[in-house]
Amino acid sequence: MKKISDSTIRRMSKYFRSLDQLIDKRVETVSSDTLAEMDGITSAQVRKDLSFFGTFGKRGFGYNTKSLKKQIENILGLYRTWNVAIVGGGNIGRALTDYTEFKKQGFIIRLIMDKDGAKIGKQVHGLTIEDFNKVNDLVKREQIDIAIIAVPADNAQAVADKLVVAGIKAILNFAPRSLKVPPDVTVKYENMAVEMEALSYFLSNKK
Amino acid sequence: MKKISDSTIRRMSKYFRSLDQLIDKRVETVSSDTLAEMDGITSAQVRKDLSFFGTFGKRGFGYNTKSLKKQIENILGLYRTWNVAIVGGGNIGRALTDYTEFKKQGFIIRLIMDKDGAKIGKQVHGLTIEDFNKVNDLVKREQIDIAIIAVPADNAQAVADKLVVAGIKAILNFAPRSLKVPPDVTVKYENMAVEMEALSYFLSNKK
Repeated sequence: MKKISDSTIRRMSKYFRSLDQLIDKRVETVSSDTLAEMDGITSAQVRKDLSFFGTFGKRGFGYNTKSLKKQIENILGLYRTWNVAIVGGGNIGRALTDYTEFKKQGFIIRLIMDKDGAKIGKQVHGLTIEDFNKVNDLVKREQIDIAIIAVPADNAQAVADKLVVAGIKAILNFAPRSLKVPPDVTVKYENMAVEMEALSYFLSNKK
Repeated sequence: MKKISDSTIRRMSKYFRSLDQLIDKRVETVSSDTLAEMDGITSAQVRKDLSFFGTFGKRGFGYNTKSLKKQIENILGLYRTWNVAIVGGGNIGRALTDYTEFKKQGFIIRLIMDKDGAKIGKQVHGLTIEDFNKVNDLVKREQIDIAIIAVPADNAQAVADKLVVAGIKAILNFAPRSLKVPPDVTVKYENMAVEMEALSYFLSNKK
């Protein structure tokens, strides 16, 4: 398969959610115009994105919602579940153990770890906070596919290094710090302040 | 000022953080190559983004870290603080009341609201959960600039409608649902599962 840009992947996630809503409402076919309007992008972009993966729609007929959803599910690897570990038993880490959207898309939180003795052993939504010093054994035991870093910025690189040693190939980093990892490991970043800054920009430059 | 794309704004937020790190390490000048490497983009893109706002750097000298940070701060409206309200006293809403990155960038959480009688009156990191039915008065009293929606997907549109009536012009929506708002209101979306799906795509399409 050709190399697909991060922004295309993100739009795929949007289409996936919109299709889900349409299927809930028993809509059977959808045009690129409707998908475009739901997701706030142009219909040309929708057609371009979807054609990238093969010709899904029929001109004048639109796309079959269920089969399109299924195809995007396959592309994104959402036809299966993934075992997820969280590092960091703070507010964000704990909140994520019970995040509905993760469960719904098949991201199952198997493990939450911290290095703080005061947190280790505490219960969070049915999980026990485990000792991060045992990360190698725990990652193996729970067959973890993806790790989430939710620790303070200054500790993020050290945590990432240990996750890499433990065999983790995919990391979602909530700490506001760029991470250096080997080329076979992928890191994605989640910084909730970034979207707030886009709002701040909007409010500052109105009119 | 010319219209700037969302992705440019997002990169500005990245530069802002990288400059912050460099200033912490007492680095006085930085090349577009270094900024590009820190943020995982091309140096041509960095130069293009920054030139968009005027000529900041000198060929062969690079950018002065402090003055570049100051200029980005002005562009993004981060030279001031913003009053923020959270709707939803669940896991995510409560975690966000104490999110370091918000405070650091000047987003001050003044208010958390819920419609659930069992949650109203409870304390969260020094704030009392208020009754969402009083949103109009509360938004006025706390001079709220930005509202965060952290409620279940099915309630998100109704909450947005009430926020718009209360005079809110900028919304960050954590619920996985597209919102319809009047043209003078901006909505940004935060869905933490989307980055997980990019990782799932990466793991599914390796080799």
